[in-house]
Amino acid sequence: MKFWLSIISGALLAPSVWAATMPSTLDQDLAYKLVESLTVEVGPRIAGSEADRRAVQWAVTNLKQLGYDKVWTEEFEMPGWTRGQASLEVVSPFAQPFVLTSLGGSVGTPAAGITSSVVMFDSIEALEKADPALVKGKIVFINKPMAKDKSGSFYGQVVAARSRGAVEAAKLGAVAIVIRSVGTSNNRFAHTGTMKYDEAITKIPAVAISVPDAQNLAKMLERSPKVELKLQMDNQLQTATSHNVIAEITGTEKPDEIVLISGHLDSWDQGTGALDDGAGVALVMATGALIQQKAKPKRTIRVVLFGNEEGGLIGARAYAAKYHKELGKHILAAESDFGAGRIWQIESRFGDKSLPFAKELQQKLAHLNIGLGGNTTYGGPDVSVLAAAGVPVLALSQDGTDYFDYHHTPNDTLDKIDPDSLKQNLQAWLIMTETVANSSVNLRH
Amino acid sequence: MKFWLSIISGALLAPSVWAATMPSTLDQDLAYKLVESLTVEVGPRIAGSEADRRAVQWAVTNLKQLGYDKVWTEEFEMPGWTRGQASLEVVSPFAQPFVLTSLGGSVGTPAAGITSSVVMFDSIEALEKADPALVKGKIVFINKPMAKDKSGSFYGQVVAARSRGAVEAAKLGAVAIVIRSVGTSNNRFAHTGTMKYDEAITKIPAVAISVPDAQNLAKMLERSPKVELKLQMDNQLQTATSHNVIAEITGTEKPDEIVLISGHLDSWDQGTGALDDGAGVALVMATGALIQQKAKPKRTIRVVLFGNEEGGLIGARAYAAKYHKELGKHILAAESDFGAGRIWQIESRFGDKSLPFAKELQQKLAHLNIGLGGNTTYGGPDVSVLAAAGVPVLALSQDGTDYFDYHHTPNDTLDKIDPDSLKQNLQAWLIMTETVANSSVNLRH
Repeated sequence: MKFWLSIISGALLAPSVWAATMPSTLDQDLAYKLVESLTVEVGPRIAGSEADRRAVQWAVTNLKQLGYDKVWTEEFEMPGWTRGQASLEVVSPFAQPFVLTSLGGSVGTPAAGITSSVVMFDSIEALEKADPALVKGKIVFINKPMAKDKSGSFYGQVVAARSRGAVEAAKLGAVAIVIRSVGTSNNRFAHTGTMKYDEAITKIPAVAISVPDAQNLAKMLERSPKVELKLQMDNQLQTATSHNVIAEITGTEKPDEIVLISGHLDSWDQGTGALDDGAGVALVMATGALIQQKAKPKRTIRVVLFGNEEGGLIGARAYAAKYHKELGKHILAAESDFGAGRIWQIESRFGDKSLPFAKELQQKLAHLNIGLGGNTTYGGPDVSVLAAAGVPVLALSQDGTDYFDYHHTPNDTLDKIDPDSLKQNLQAWLIMTETVANSSVNLRH
Repeated sequence: MKFWLSIISGALLAPSVWAATMPSTLDQDLAYKLVESLTVEVGPRIAGSEADRRAVQWAVTNLKQLGYDKVWTEEFEMPGWTRGQASLEVVSPFAQPFVLTSLGGSVGTPAAGITSSVVMFDSIEALEKADPALVKGKIVFINKPMAKDKSGSFYGQVVAARSRGAVEAAKLGAVAIVIRSVGTSNNRFAHTGTMKYDEAITKIPAVAISVPDAQNLAKMLERSPKVELKLQMDNQLQTATSHNVIAEITGTEKPDEIVLISGHLDSWDQGTGALDDGAGVALVMATGALIQQKAKPKRTIRVVLFGNEEGGLIGARAYAAKYHKELGKHILAAESDFGAGRIWQIESRFGDKSLPFAKELQQKLAHLNIGLGGNTTYGGPDVSVLAAAGVPVLALSQDGTDYFDYHHTPNDTLDKIDPDSLKQNLQAWLIMTETVANSSVNLRH
């Protein structure tokens, strides 16, 4: 108990006390050590890649070393995508290269590239209303800026240009689409992220340019309506496999009742996947290990490191399909996938009669400056799939004010994680998880 | 006079007054408009490139439109350098790619690349003292961080690794050198910049990696002494030509006395050369034009936009050689080449008897919060060549606290310029230049 309090209060114990209670690796820095290990030793790990397979091996090895009772992987198939070289340049009248990134899943161009003039829109909504004669044969440019707030609420207003811009542009006869990065920084990084096609509509290449490049292109278009761009890109599409990695601390009293805590193991390939989602992976790996170090929980704590979240929650869907008969025994599902900012709010999606338990949890977290939010959370990208299947979820909501400065860019690296914020996160995850796993609460009520 | 005061006080005149006194383009926003035009319409312009030639044409056209009496170009030859593709990756044991940039002037690698293990040093001084047996056949990694201050004083302590690291590493038998970027930001950009070879020493490839990558590599080396890197790079070296662009407002009373104000027209190729040195180019172009708009000066104001500063002050040396007999008639030389931060100090290199004039200038600038510095400035990179030949120089010293966050990276783009700071700069340049050009002071005294 003494050890446990040292974790949750953040106080340091003298080294001799540490040595007496636990292996030296399992301390309040454990989450930071794990995300450091993942980013340094594996780095970027896009689903289906060789690095993804090394990440799975890294997770299995570390979960076993952390003392989990059971550790296993579950393979799934998926549409794979490999980023090739890409370039986008102004051909005339103001020849210069842009900083770009292919959107995830985009087709490439013919080897000679696509050269065409540009038509700019302020938003995907403006594109949808456009006269096809203005768009036909052109490269569409959507130049919508994104604002920032704690909850990242502006992402949803801007990301449609990324996810379905190619379909809407192709419907009107465009030959390619270029979007302003869905991000909040004026650093010259382009933000990648997944995009979708409609099988009934021509698949056109889709890329994002950095915010300064988008501003530059807009200024060019003020000067000349005839700005001509050349896009070359050689991505590859092929079926691939990836894995969910699952580990359990078996419950002592109700081993069939699952408290699921999760992150996603895959990352985009531009950064090293520190904030998205090395931090979340590290937090939930550390949480189960540190709880067990203190005392086995009554219910089973299941850590799920989902595969291929970025490609469209592929691992989460595979998990939900495989375990659909057992989801009734999933007491709770939670996920950390919004960086490593301080947790400021707990949100739930419980049955109405269980709302007092959300308040109870919040009171246990109040000393960490965590307040109580609403009961409408989707819990996080992967666990939203479980929420849709009726599993109660909660979110330990992180301050994401700066998250979209880094997210999906080359700048998502370890140095962007504040170790103290990560410690606060770990304390909250420990308290929340231990409380639920040692209770007999039914959150569906 | 009324108009002039409106410029130097920063006050806005009513539109009708503007229209009566000058063309609408020549206002206190002129410097911003010029750097916007240069970065949007030309963009990156490495010396000797096609874009460099367009930049020269841009400068000639704009200087003529701004009303300069004489505008001409002066060609010079130089060692040219073309950046090719470059990649640096960890082969083992922690395979992942790094963000890198070739240093300017570096040779490439064989087509198959160079693969070797790494030996890390904290500084070039540590490398110089190293046992050759530790270095032979390896890739040297110099991991020296850079701190920030207003005057950029830490640059000089770190940049030696870039400028002569390849020579020092090759002396000890290294096969390539990788340096931590000479910059102050943890954004994942690699900083380029010129490097030198010694013709008597084997020329090895030289690159910089971003700060997060340098931190990552250092963490890898903590974990394994056998980190193996693969570097591939295909730069080209060949003789090239570039140009200085020169324009004058001819003096009414002493046309042979030259007040030289300058910036450099070339830029590195990663960004769009906004801070380095589009801002400086724009400031001095605007200064001459706005002074003439008010009244012709007594002495000649000569605007020099030096070519190939980045490759080693090549244009400045060509200028000094061509005009060596006339440098005695150069009353003053000044340069803006430290970004676009607010000017906070005037520094001089005048004859001792002329120091009261430095104080007089400072008093005219005091309302812009500009203080008086010392008498030991070198004036700026290009004009340091003239200072060495005895020409009096001064510096309107900008706040460069953030300069090395952007300098020589892809992030040197227009959005990093604060228009209000640029206006303050322009006001200071106007006052300084007009005062000297309308005086009869001899700054050599």
